[in-house]
Amino acid sequence: MTGIITQGEKRLVLVSGRAHPQLAADVAQELGIDLLPTSAYDFANGEIYVRFNESVRGSDVFVLQSHTSPINQWLMEQLLMVDALKRGSAKRITVVAPFYPYARQDKKHRGREPISARLVADLFKTAGADRLLSIDMHAAQSQGFFDGPVDHLWAMPILTDYVRTRIDTANAAMVSPDAGRIRVAEQWAARLGGVPLAFVHKTRDISRPNQSVANRVVGDVKGRTAVLVDDMIDTGGTIAEAVKVVLAAGASDVIVAATHGVLSDPAAQRLSESGAREVVVTDTLPISADKHFPQLTVLPIAPLLARAIREVFDDGSVTSLFEGNA
Amino acid sequence: MTGIITQGEKRLVLVSGRAHPQLAADVAQELGIDLLPTSAYDFANGEIYVRFNESVRGSDVFVLQSHTSPINQWLMEQLLMVDALKRGSAKRITVVAPFYPYARQDKKHRGREPISARLVADLFKTAGADRLLSIDMHAAQSQGFFDGPVDHLWAMPILTDYVRTRIDTANAAMVSPDAGRIRVAEQWAARLGGVPLAFVHKTRDISRPNQSVANRVVGDVKGRTAVLVDDMIDTGGTIAEAVKVVLAAGASDVIVAATHGVLSDPAAQRLSESGAREVVVTDTLPISADKHFPQLTVLPIAPLLARAIREVFDDGSVTSLFEGNA
Amino acid sequence: MTGIITQGEKRLVLVSGRAHPQLAADVAQELGIDLLPTSAYDFANGEIYVRFNESVRGSDVFVLQSHTSPINQWLMEQLLMVDALKRGSAKRITVVAPFYPYARQDKKHRGREPISARLVADLFKTAGADRLLSIDMHAAQSQGFFDGPVDHLWAMPILTDYVRTRIDTANAAMVSPDAGRIRVAEQWAARLGGVPLAFVHKTRDISRPNQSVANRVVGDVKGRTAVLVDDMIDTGGTIAEAVKVVLAAGASDVIVAATHGVLSDPAAQRLSESGAREVVVTDTLPISADKHFPQLTVLPIAPLLARAIREVFDDGSVTSLFEGNA
Amino acid sequence: MTGIITQGEKRLVLVSGRAHPQLAADVAQELGIDLLPTSAYDFANGEIYVRFNESVRGSDVFVLQSHTSPINQWLMEQLLMVDALKRGSAKRITVVAPFYPYARQDKKHRGREPISARLVADLFKTAGADRLLSIDMHAAQSQGFFDGPVDHLWAMPILTDYVRTRIDTANAAMVSPDAGRIRVAEQWAARLGGVPLAFVHKTRDISRPNQSVANRVVGDVKGRTAVLVDDMIDTGGTIAEAVKVVLAAGASDVIVAATHGVLSDPAAQRLSESGAREVVVTDTLPISADKHFPQLTVLPIAPLLARAIREVFDDGSVTSLFEGNA
Amino acid sequence: MTGIITQGEKRLVLVSGRAHPQLAADVAQELGIDLLPTSAYDFANGEIYVRFNESVRGSDVFVLQSHTSPINQWLMEQLLMVDALKRGSAKRITVVAPFYPYARQDKKHRGREPISARLVADLFKTAGADRLLSIDMHAAQSQGFFDGPVDHLWAMPILTDYVRTRIDTANAAMVSPDAGRIRVAEQWAARLGGVPLAFVHKTRDISRPNQSVANRVVGDVKGRTAVLVDDMIDTGGTIAEAVKVVLAAGASDVIVAATHGVLSDPAAQRLSESGAREVVVTDTLPISADKHFPQLTVLPIAPLLARAIREVFDDGSVTSLFEGNA
Amino acid sequence: MTGIITQGEKRLVLVSGRAHPQLAADVAQELGIDLLPTSAYDFANGEIYVRFNESVRGSDVFVLQSHTSPINQWLMEQLLMVDALKRGSAKRITVVAPFYPYARQDKKHRGREPISARLVADLFKTAGADRLLSIDMHAAQSQGFFDGPVDHLWAMPILTDYVRTRIDTANAAMVSPDAGRIRVAEQWAARLGGVPLAFVHKTRDISRPNQSVANRVVGDVKGRTAVLVDDMIDTGGTIAEAVKVVLAAGASDVIVAATHGVLSDPAAQRLSESGAREVVVTDTLPISADKHFPQLTVLPIAPLLARAIREVFDDGSVTSLFEGNA
Repeated sequence: MTGIITQGEKRLVLVSGRAHPQLAADVAQELGIDLLPTSAYDFANGEIYVRFNESVRGSDVFVLQSHTSPINQWLMEQLLMVDALKRGSAKRITVVAPFYPYARQDKKHRGREPISARLVADLFKTAGADRLLSIDMHAAQSQGFFDGPVDHLWAMPILTDYVRTRIDTANAAMVSPDAGRIRVAEQWAARLGGVPLAFVHKTRDISRPNQSVANRVVGDVKGRTAVLVDDMIDTGGTIAEAVKVVLAAGASDVIVAATHGVLSDPAAQRLSESGAREVVVTDTLPISADKHFPQLTVLPIAPLLARAIREVFDDGSVTSLFEGNA
Repeated sequence: MTGIITQGEKRLVLVSGRAHPQLAADVAQELGIDLLPTSAYDFANGEIYVRFNESVRGSDVFVLQSHTSPINQWLMEQLLMVDALKRGSAKRITVVAPFYPYARQDKKHRGREPISARLVADLFKTAGADRLLSIDMHAAQSQGFFDGPVDHLWAMPILTDYVRTRIDTANAAMVSPDAGRIRVAEQWAARLGGVPLAFVHKTRDISRPNQSVANRVVGDVKGRTAVLVDDMIDTGGTIAEAVKVVLAAGASDVIVAATHGVLSDPAAQRLSESGAREVVVTDTLPISADKHFPQLTVLPIAPLLARAIREVFDDGSVTSLFEGNA
Repeated sequence: MTGIITQGEKRLVLVSGRAHPQLAADVAQELGIDLLPTSAYDFANGEIYVRFNESVRGSDVFVLQSHTSPINQWLMEQLLMVDALKRGSAKRITVVAPFYPYARQDKKHRGREPISARLVADLFKTAGADRLLSIDMHAAQSQGFFDGPVDHLWAMPILTDYVRTRIDTANAAMVSPDAGRIRVAEQWAARLGGVPLAFVHKTRDISRPNQSVANRVVGDVKGRTAVLVDDMIDTGGTIAEAVKVVLAAGASDVIVAATHGVLSDPAAQRLSESGAREVVVTDTLPISADKHFPQLTVLPIAPLLARAIREVFDDGSVTSLFEGNA
Repeated sequence: MTGIITQGEKRLVLVSGRAHPQLAADVAQELGIDLLPTSAYDFANGEIYVRFNESVRGSDVFVLQSHTSPINQWLMEQLLMVDALKRGSAKRITVVAPFYPYARQDKKHRGREPISARLVADLFKTAGADRLLSIDMHAAQSQGFFDGPVDHLWAMPILTDYVRTRIDTANAAMVSPDAGRIRVAEQWAARLGGVPLAFVHKTRDISRPNQSVANRVVGDVKGRTAVLVDDMIDTGGTIAEAVKVVLAAGASDVIVAATHGVLSDPAAQRLSESGAREVVVTDTLPISADKHFPQLTVLPIAPLLARAIREVFDDGSVTSLFEGNA
Repeated sequence: MTGIITQGEKRLVLVSGRAHPQLAADVAQELGIDLLPTSAYDFANGEIYVRFNESVRGSDVFVLQSHTSPINQWLMEQLLMVDALKRGSAKRITVVAPFYPYARQDKKHRGREPISARLVADLFKTAGADRLLSIDMHAAQSQGFFDGPVDHLWAMPILTDYVRTRIDTANAAMVSPDAGRIRVAEQWAARLGGVPLAFVHKTRDISRPNQSVANRVVGDVKGRTAVLVDDMIDTGGTIAEAVKVVLAAGASDVIVAATHGVLSDPAAQRLSESGAREVVVTDTLPISADKHFPQLTVLPIAPLLARAIREVFDDGSVTSLFEGNA
Repeated sequence: MTGIITQGEKRLVLVSGRAHPQLAADVAQELGIDLLPTSAYDFANGEIYVRFNESVRGSDVFVLQSHTSPINQWLMEQLLMVDALKRGSAKRITVVAPFYPYARQDKKHRGREPISARLVADLFKTAGADRLLSIDMHAAQSQGFFDGPVDHLWAMPILTDYVRTRIDTANAAMVSPDAGRIRVAEQWAARLGGVPLAFVHKTRDISRPNQSVANRVVGDVKGRTAVLVDDMIDTGGTIAEAVKVVLAAGASDVIVAATHGVLSDPAAQRLSESGAREVVVTDTLPISADKHFPQLTVLPIAPLLARAIREVFDDGSVTSLFEGNA
């Protein structure tokens, strides 16, 4: 047979944008590797320059970026990195976006809106991404926006393992901050061994039409530790209000848990003053000093990301990471 | 200037698959036109043959199919029609799928599943569809699965206008059959002028772990006419159970309303024996004689489809059809 | 160098739809492997659910389906399987369709028809298929419909090896049932060592214009065993008529051979009463009990499929399987 | 409403490559228009330059090229023209290729061959062609190679109308030059009112295996005018041999008819010496002086092309041009 | 004929992002229309929301954005607008990007860089753009990055018409600030009636290798008004240095002209202190108060944009806008 | 785990078109392999036939073609080869085009031209090319035309290493034949250790407007060996004129160096009579006997191509081949 034959090899490479260097370092450490050396900076007019300082030919590359503010800049940086990898002959490119950008714009609420979450998926694809890895997307349907494999991880086990150590499950209640996210609370309740469910419900006062809205707790939280769960905390308005309503309804105390700590201003103030005993998030997004407040606990997400990346590289099973969990 | 110049024209054409001829006839009548004559039949081994008997060149064609059982056959028939239109030089092809097929498989619930609703969108696109028109998709996010414009219609105004004539809104309650569809009930409640909300909630009995599940009504329905709403009724199990629970909770009577009357066996029996006073659906799907039962009311969807098609053809506004409604 | 480097591996996986479990089992046995455990069932309204119960990450997957009636259901099931494999990070996906669906609709016979065989190829591609493997497509040109590699296998060696044991080639004649398929008969004649050729020809009686059609045999079959060949037998009308004409022309007896035994009703009756001594097909399609008749012989296609799959997996040569054959 | 609204217009534009200027002029004259002025020439190293000298914005452009030798040059020129039209904002681009290039390479005869006819279709699409218009493609299946509308014209009515004036249909016979093209001869026979069919058949002499091949006429041509038909005449070898065999079988004389007069050397010599009374082709390809010979008749194809182009532009029916013809 | 037939219409619509509202207003005024009312704002975490407040169905929409800093935000806003237009059934979408973002990253200077200008073109296409309109792209080759029509406008006539009024062309010299942009200076020289050419050349002093670089003027500028031209002025370093070198070489005074006034800090300071008599740019980019300096002249680009947009809408000729100009 | 697991292998395969067999043989020899046996010939009407005589399944194939005249034929041949490789299940296909065809048509100089270099990139992609390898493209921006990795090699080190042996760098001058290619001369100057730069400049004589053009040398060449550099020499007009001008300006002698020796007629005559001491090119294109002339030196490009191909196959670094060079 004509030609040259050699043994095949696979090479895992991790590169990262500039949005969340600590997370990149943590994932690399968990994997026991160094990040591939990368140059990235902004030109005077805001255009971004990126370059990889070592060859990525034939490599199975994971491109990590954390989509914090300024979110469009970090999104564009990641797209440029994917383009550079594609043109640099990487074998397979997996976009790692722990917090999927524009996840909340996943449908047209009204005519003539974009479906931004779908657009983002298409932009990744166009730049050259073969695969996508994300954590707790706002709507699970958004997995279907990407034309290719999506590894959708759950932070719930991390959060519940921690929260379990902070409460007496025999005397707790799971609470959803609104009607739309009760399913997540249900999954928590099951994982915590069947704690009761409740949620905060926005009702219009019929006697005063079109005028006032009252939040009330549906389900019994009296004397219990209420665990309020959501996928993300942005400005914290809904959550802080829910904490107050739950306490008013007689909860003994409140723990808030969410995967993504966006914590846009004035979340820190709102939450620290809300009356919650503790607010638990992971570090899918960087949490700068000005976002911190006394009750905040940040759990590391790097171990989960590293394990998933390794399973993907080894052709193992990401599903197996969550078996028995839901 | 070289060449031939003529005035531009637009031509609206409506074609239909064989799944629901009555609906096609109704839509054509509402539009004041005839269906384009079409040949369609099955070969001995089940392969479908379709052909249009008049030219469709340069036309703005709407291809109506109702995705009832055998759903894969009707889906394939519609794909073949789209292919024939594309190759026959139609100018623009809009798939009209009042009940979007595989709408419930809109995400991976577990690893190694398809995202069937996305696949269906891609199949339509591949066959040659430029646009999609559907009614009350199971998840609004599924609009984002199609790479092109989607006109997403709501049947709610049709249903609420009817139900309003059947109840005393001062003495009614909106009820969702499970936790996942409360938002729809909320929209109904708002449209009906602020009737109270309730829903049926599946809870695990903590005292007997992993063993039994009880449904209970959250919210007050006592002495009220409960209006149970969902996007579709398939085998009717969940809905029939919800009717019983609501009645047991003291509702004076129950009306069930849903856009899509799939009514797979044994829905007719279950619903007729459920205790509901009336079950209201639209005819997005054909309702054969054996699916009928005394309490069933079927509202015509053709007027809505025809108005939307005309707006699309005229470059009007589909959004305007629903303004002030939600 | 940064990163993790491991040895590369290849993994062959075989999965199957539900249309023809025996064939799937046979191919797996020939390959010496188990089928990958798969869940597949129909929902009440006919929508199909599929899921793979083991990881397919990084695997070279062959997705076998036999496109028997209800053909649209099995086609859709295979598309869903391909989608699930793509989203499950399979490395390469080969659609194995021994009998290519809609193969006869490979051109527009008249305006405004679809080209269904091309559409099917595009649907497979869209779902995520990288490659296609089929046997004796109706027109060899249809290979060109798929945008990617197609392994087109011939069942002729299997059929001729068997038929050779059933006839005296010195006293046989190859017969085509109509003018359009003489080339296949020519290839048989060459492979059987140069037996004479003949075919059945439909002629319009000039003396009675537009009125009657007579079939007559062109070529000499008198006293010989006539071997009638075609790519498929559907309802058996053309073949049964050809058997009668050939016998009337003095053939001593007739053997019918075809790759694909579609055998739609009333093929069994027609063929069993046609006067043919034996009808030989392969099991590319399942042949249920009601399709059987005394003269029917079914040859196993699994060995050919298994050998081709193994060559594809091993980067060997599928062409080599047929060298010296035509 | 915001914006500017004007009346829509359509503009038909015809442009042509350099391969067959007479045909382009004829088609333009039939349409009653001028060709759009175009610059086209070769650079010293063979690279082609093209430019349109008038605006094509918003126009419905038909790009005519005749794929004669050097065929790759003319194909590339047409691709460049399509690219220039696309970038020049033409509204719709129809490739007019009366003789489809590489039509004979429409399948893999053996492993590791291209499917050139499919490749050509993809090249046209990539360059920017929306539609394709061709005449008598070698295999009708090749229509399916193009991902878009194909208008496939038949020259048969032109040829039969002429041949009818040259023969006594009561005393004629249709003859196919080999077994693979009998269907075309059947269509001719039907159109000419039911003249008898025959064909030339290549048989291996069984008594001298693997050694000699004899051509013989199957069917009766004795004393009749034989009309030999094919889709194209390239070097004329098969046809010239067929003429001799038919004459040897007793035909009174022979007329050869084909759509495409490729007439590669030594076709002129072979055909002029073959004994045929007349050889009839159309001018889909230019027929230079050195390709002419006394018995050659060339029929104009421009009227058919012009009528089809006008129907396409007017959203009429190309199918209607052939109704009642086959 | 079946269906509804109406007269065709075309509707021009202009929408704009938030980056440069004055330019949008100017272009609208030149066109004599209002901008389509649009909602656009940022969420707390930087995600952008856009919505069109009127129907865009069937419209020929021009989406104007000026890619000033923060450039990635404005790029993403424009992509979201294009997505919303596509999903809102606009008929044709033209991205109007007077200053093409990432234009300078048009090739890989070294391995493992992106080709950002190509990526941007692909992002526009993916979002749904059919066409692109830009002015004086950094490299003309970048037109080829977009897969569709690009209308590439020149601001040179605007700049030269103005500069002609400020100089005595009999006593002027065109100067390029570096070796790479001499062709533009050549075009200016031709348009200004053949003024002499010169340019600033960076030379390495051979006597002191690898150590020092000297800029010198090649060509004669002594006693003349030097006109320094470039496509853009970013931080102004190269240009300011060139002004000094030209003055040192004896130029009587210097006018700087460029299409795009990026004017990133510290351009204002550098240029105002450079010694140039006047710096002329257009307003393709907004020039905020802090970017102004006494010698700066800003010419309006809106008339050119409006004329080009109108030509595109009317299927006229954009080329004609520049005839006789270069 | 279900399935068959084997060790992965990689196989490098080199195939070649017919344009430049010597170069193919040289590259194969450098790699220490045989070319994969390939059949390729022309049909009578110019259509090309290609077939690979050994399996290419799973191989990393490099398809070499040299785009000399007749350039469209060789381009089409390479496209057909790529198509055959794709359909033959090659794993990865790299088009090796040392001289990129249509490289000079890389932008629209005027309206309604094609961007031929982009079209060529798209044709390669459509045929199935995954990657592109070329040498000294006319504009580096053209790398961005291909949607995938491009390995862009520089022949400069080869040329400079040779020229260095032919001149006294202390007494030489780098000269660009026109203003547009000075950057290349700059790179040469740097690599040769800082020799002075000059170039030939076309100026319009102001005293006789629109009438005459004079070429003059800018920079000092008096008494020096002038090294004239360009990317290609086609008909040699510009270069031969430059040689004369440089000599007239006092250069002691002239050496011409270019990567691509297109040498279209009358380049040989022009260059041999130009007065140049030596003309140095590489053999990216075949240089037939009639293109030779006494002063011509042809350097082998095969070592560079072979090293790059090996780096690509081995997932090494092509960038490293040029480190320290520019």
